Amino acid sequence: MSSFHRGRLIAVEGIDGCGKTTQAKMLSKALGALLTFEPGATALGKEIRGLLLDVSLPHPVARAEALLMAADRAQHVDEVVRPALEDGKWVVTDRYSGSTLAYQGAGRQLGVAALRQIVEWAADDLAPDLSILLDVPVPLARRRLASSAPDRLERLQDDFHERVREGFLSLAAEKDWVVVDGEGDTPQVHDEIMRAVERRLGLPGSRRFPSEGG
Amino acid sequence: MSSFHRGRLIAVEGIDGCGKTTQAKMLSKALGALLTFEPGATALGKEIRGLLLDVSLPHPVARAEALLMAADRAQHVDEVVRPALEDGKWVVTDRYSGSTLAYQGAGRQLGVAALRQIVEWAADDLAPDLSILLDVPVPLARRRLASSAPDRLERLQDDFHERVREGFLSLAAEKDWVVVDGEGDTPQVHDEIMRAVERRLGLPGSRRFPSEGG
Repeated sequence: MSSFHRGRLIAVEGIDGCGKTTQAKMLSKALGALLTFEPGATALGKEIRGLLLDVSLPHPVARAEALLMAADRAQHVDEVVRPALEDGKWVVTDRYSGSTLAYQGAGRQLGVAALRQIVEWAADDLAPDLSILLDVPVPLARRRLASSAPDRLERLQDDFHERVREGFLSLAAEKDWVVVDGEGDTPQVHDEIMRAVERRLGLPGSRRFPSEGG
Repeated sequence: MSSFHRGRLIAVEGIDGCGKTTQAKMLSKALGALLTFEPGATALGKEIRGLLLDVSLPHPVARAEALLMAADRAQHVDEVVRPALEDGKWVVTDRYSGSTLAYQGAGRQLGVAALRQIVEWAADDLAPDLSILLDVPVPLARRRLASSAPDRLERLQDDFHERVREGFLSLAAEKDWVVVDGEGDTPQVHDEIMRAVERRLGLPGSRRFPSEGG
């Protein structure tokens, strides 16, 4: 299959409370793309997500948490993401491999380098065509989350979230992600994301793909 | 802590129906060792095992299956195995890393080399002091299993189990495992295992450890 007919995969990444779920929804609608998310988009993934959030279980150790996230991703790629891309659809995912590297690698201090191989193997080497980091300061993210029910991952301390944010920023610099300031109002952030997608990937169906070589 | 006071970890490996659950039990009793198993020895692991066997879910893809096994092992090592060893106890585990390499690496053809890094990372580099392979031909294992309720992993085809058996034999040759012929009667197999343990590790409390250098 030529790369022209294959869809594009866009990952929206960031700390809890950065606004990425709202922005992923708006982006997928604007692009006519399939909207999906991690963890928990498959039947298996939903069960895995349940294990991660089940407060009646002892919390998984950090390596187990990372491996469960990777298992969720393996199923997600094979069941949802790759079939859609091969069908020519664009896919927007609310979190992808970058989240495991930032949360478990940087936040839980397992090390980004060691995790990267596992994460890439889990994803069967399917990398996003574009990753977008919605960056916000941790205190703002916490204020936004305060009104919603915090789940286990969201209850962690500020220093954890600072490490996760720094992890995301490092990945973004290293892997040439688009970094969008998530502090602006929702439509303004959406516009900035749309401009970045058009600049980097073109828009679906527009036949203005800037990098057809790949 | 000196290696003298640390307990020893013995993994009993083999295909379903090789007799390893019976032999692991007899061995742990004879050694006064903690008996444990994979997958499913922790509260989290029990849930993970449930996901792997739940016939109402679509079967996990091979990479997800391997990562779930690795997640189970990470939790098992941190919660059960390492604390017991550090407490000076000997531990006998019914399956360990070798099973993931043989079942998912060889059986499901994910590749042993690619999986090895993941498996070692999951186990936090805790390798058994001795792995014992109970080797039996696949047709014998199937006859033994025929009367018990086969779970999902056990329902797989003969060619799968032949690959798993070959995978175990390759690991055993490469990593200097003890290979015990599992076709004999139960007490005879037990005697052979005990002799191998004494030869390789000495016996707990006997102060006849042949390799105290490590």
